[in-house]
Amino acid sequence: MNTPSMSMPTPPMAFGLWGTMEERKPLSDSIKNMLNSILGSAQPRPIPALEDLKLSEVRLSDTDLDALKKLVGSQHVSTDREQRVPRALGKSYFDLLDTRLADVISCPDAVVTPATEDEVLKVLQWCTAEKVAVVPFGGGTSVVGGVTPLDGGLRAVISLDLARFDAVEDVDPISGEATLGAGMSGPHAEIELAKHGLQLGHFPQSFPYATIGGFAATRSSGQNSAGYGRFDEMVRSMTVVTPQGIIEPGHAAPSSAAGPDMREIFLGSEGTFGIITRVRCNVHPIPETKAYEAFVFPNFDAGVNAVRMVEQTGTGPTVIRLSDEVESATNLTSTDSIGTKEGAAPKGCLCLTMYEGSPDHVESRHKETRELLLSLGGQSIGEAPVRKWEKGRFGSPVLRDSLLDVGALCETFETATDWSNVARLKKQVTAALTDELTKSGTMCLVLCHVSHVYANGCSLYFTVVATQNDQPRKQWEIAKVRVMKAIVDNGGTITHHHAIGTDHVSAMPHEIGAVGIQLMQAIKSTLDPAGILNPGKLVSSQA
Amino acid sequence: MNTPSMSMPTPPMAFGLWGTMEERKPLSDSIKNMLNSILGSAQPRPIPALEDLKLSEVRLSDTDLDALKKLVGSQHVSTDREQRVPRALGKSYFDLLDTRLADVISCPDAVVTPATEDEVLKVLQWCTAEKVAVVPFGGGTSVVGGVTPLDGGLRAVISLDLARFDAVEDVDPISGEATLGAGMSGPHAEIELAKHGLQLGHFPQSFPYATIGGFAATRSSGQNSAGYGRFDEMVRSMTVVTPQGIIEPGHAAPSSAAGPDMREIFLGSEGTFGIITRVRCNVHPIPETKAYEAFVFPNFDAGVNAVRMVEQTGTGPTVIRLSDEVESATNLTSTDSIGTKEGAAPKGCLCLTMYEGSPDHVESRHKETRELLLSLGGQSIGEAPVRKWEKGRFGSPVLRDSLLDVGALCETFETATDWSNVARLKKQVTAALTDELTKSGTMCLVLCHVSHVYANGCSLYFTVVATQNDQPRKQWEIAKVRVMKAIVDNGGTITHHHAIGTDHVSAMPHEIGAVGIQLMQAIKSTLDPAGILNPGKLVSSQA
Repeated sequence: MNTPSMSMPTPPMAFGLWGTMEERKPLSDSIKNMLNSILGSAQPRPIPALEDLKLSEVRLSDTDLDALKKLVGSQHVSTDREQRVPRALGKSYFDLLDTRLADVISCPDAVVTPATEDEVLKVLQWCTAEKVAVVPFGGGTSVVGGVTPLDGGLRAVISLDLARFDAVEDVDPISGEATLGAGMSGPHAEIELAKHGLQLGHFPQSFPYATIGGFAATRSSGQNSAGYGRFDEMVRSMTVVTPQGIIEPGHAAPSSAAGPDMREIFLGSEGTFGIITRVRCNVHPIPETKAYEAFVFPNFDAGVNAVRMVEQTGTGPTVIRLSDEVESATNLTSTDSIGTKEGAAPKGCLCLTMYEGSPDHVESRHKETRELLLSLGGQSIGEAPVRKWEKGRFGSPVLRDSLLDVGALCETFETATDWSNVARLKKQVTAALTDELTKSGTMCLVLCHVSHVYANGCSLYFTVVATQNDQPRKQWEIAKVRVMKAIVDNGGTITHHHAIGTDHVSAMPHEIGAVGIQLMQAIKSTLDPAGILNPGKLVSSQA
Repeated sequence: MNTPSMSMPTPPMAFGLWGTMEERKPLSDSIKNMLNSILGSAQPRPIPALEDLKLSEVRLSDTDLDALKKLVGSQHVSTDREQRVPRALGKSYFDLLDTRLADVISCPDAVVTPATEDEVLKVLQWCTAEKVAVVPFGGGTSVVGGVTPLDGGLRAVISLDLARFDAVEDVDPISGEATLGAGMSGPHAEIELAKHGLQLGHFPQSFPYATIGGFAATRSSGQNSAGYGRFDEMVRSMTVVTPQGIIEPGHAAPSSAAGPDMREIFLGSEGTFGIITRVRCNVHPIPETKAYEAFVFPNFDAGVNAVRMVEQTGTGPTVIRLSDEVESATNLTSTDSIGTKEGAAPKGCLCLTMYEGSPDHVESRHKETRELLLSLGGQSIGEAPVRKWEKGRFGSPVLRDSLLDVGALCETFETATDWSNVARLKKQVTAALTDELTKSGTMCLVLCHVSHVYANGCSLYFTVVATQNDQPRKQWEIAKVRVMKAIVDNGGTITHHHAIGTDHVSAMPHEIGAVGIQLMQAIKSTLDPAGILNPGKLVSSQA
């Protein structure tokens, strides 16, 4: 775990990359050659240097900027290239393509970094009066266009960075709660909580960079979700600043029958209803012990059946994951390289399990899970694959940048469905994707895993690697539409934990229905009548 | 488990009673004498005969009734005394007092029993056009004024009975899901699911009469909540008919990051946003085995600490309950009688635990829980108290009617708070109640238990028995206001599982804040612009 950068307002990730320049892992020449032979006609697509980029003009006047500076302090309003560019794009494949190919980078007109709810409210009120859009910014890890600085037809757009909401407050170890600033990164929160012997236990792949506020705004789900739940389940209460005032959904009690659960309106709201500034979270003592065991199943269906039974029986692993045959072949070699074999392993589908808690607790959960998995066709292959996964688990997005360097299409997307529908959904999505991306006779590889399990169903996480054609943005636009249709037509949700952003807006009417869209618009226009908050995200337009 | 009555539209409970005439348990003369000596000046308050009641006039014309009959069939619209009276009042203490004391019973003008979503929609559209209010009716077990037929200033009010939504559909044993008609009672649902080897596992005290739709609309919580969760957590999706059309919140997947969770807007909405007609629920195989063990703790604080540690460690009981000293003294004697000692038991606070699942699962959970409870000061007193509780657990509301017969004030209410605040909240609520109800030197007994536990906190369920004064309604109105203030001022939610109804409306602004109220009103006016749906419940008025 690295201590996150605390200097402000430095953006957390390098432009165009997952992570920082130092984290880059360029492919070796031999792997490049192998990829070139697989990918065929791919063109290298390097990232331009920051100083070579052409940026959109700043549309805020000096008067505007002075007004904003009065609200938050002059050092917390910036129109510098170094601040605007990293907040211009997230980390979707579209974003990464735009980084490399766009003629002009559409940037937020300014980056504004308030430190208190009062300052946030004043900024929102100024933006409401001045018809300026606001895009909240946490870690910038969105892979669905969540930080794209759309202006919604208003005269400008600012990036509102939450980085100065960076403290752990009000730790209550008895109730297992702590209030965390929305701008704290995953590692920062864990480092601070560890001082109290506590842990959040939320480890999505974006963990090193993503923020507490972002986790809540997008309904993030971490790799330990079998043990600690999705992030939305960890939220005891929140502070949300809307143009109409501040709301603290969930403040009254851990559980209540006092009407609709107001937290659930703001969880997943992606900054379109308000700015989440603080989150009071469930925290727990740092686990005493961990245990690890990997299994191999003869095929994906057998593996899905087994992880289903584990979840429905409640045997209690903290982590349970299942890769399909294609992904297993990759994982059994290495998580941070492609094509380098590290010892043989049984063919089939890899299932990783981990257990956390007191020694007795871990032992009983491990034993019950293990016996069930073995009885359902699993074969134990020891703890090494799980430890290897745990060590490298935040590393794979870095690899994507290297694949793009050599001209590969590489993207991930995810869905969830009921257990009885898993096989059908996986098959149809894979077929649609493969059919679309191999049209010109090029290669397409589709990997899939289950990483989040529920009593009724599970997530399906897909990774696709294919050969870019000569119109790579259009190529993925067409494929993405087909994938979304395949998901929607075959009983999946359009997103299990990546959120809607701009990329999935077109699927929202199917997801929540016409009455649901009406409701979202009613909530939006009540809280944000001027439509300044993150326009173009979540739902397409106001009523 | 009794087979519920399937004849329609017979109301499920007798007027003025919990349960049916056959279930009455009149107190023996010796207990009556004892109570009289404790209660002092109490006056007997018998329930009038149905035929002696004076009812509010029917305000619907023959033309109105004919229009409704056209929509749902003439046998499904009734203005009969036998149908109107049982739907006039729920089972709160206020309701029970009104039953015995009111000069005129305010009844719904008609009882309408549609059988399909299409019929419900047409009834809502007719009521919208004709300015007639609609109170949805399930089991009529509300203890917070949830079925009070308020007209909201409209020209009449109908009771919309869901009894004909009475089927189990679409059972998916792989995904652990089944769609249940909103009008099915708890026993009816369990009997039907048992044919598939499945169980819902939702056992609130209202179980014998309350319905699936009511559970969802009020965020009911059952006695097995430690194992199977609150009812709101069991809801995979719903069908809700609003005046603006039908919505199916949650249909897409078991878990999703596609924006706000629309289910959570309708869960707890108490029929004010729409009529819940079907609920797709989590179901699970009927457990193979059960284990039982009761413990005694030296005092309530020690017990609370122990049940907290059980929940936070995740040792996994299906039921865990803790009674305070006063309630324990009652429970250790009998659940269905007062004052008859059945053998001695250790003094202190009774903690009941139950475990369900496969034999191995039950054994490991029982062992881990037991060891933790013993290590934290618990003393095992065997399984008998738990079995006794299980046997009588739906019976105690019947007792309340007998207490009212002899002129006692008897009511229950509940709240929830963080673990670190349990002692303070319990103390302040008990003090406020005792102070108010002993003002004229009469007796007041306050019992309390913890029956629902969460990582961050737990519920506190209070039972109060006191001497009625000569203005019994006013007496409880004043006491209820003080109790609500004590809850709100001391960090509790106004209701953990009884819902808002009419009784808690005044606390909603504190519960969700001014922006929250604005949001509720926006949702309400979007879905129900004419304000026909259950006026006066949940939130006080429209925007």
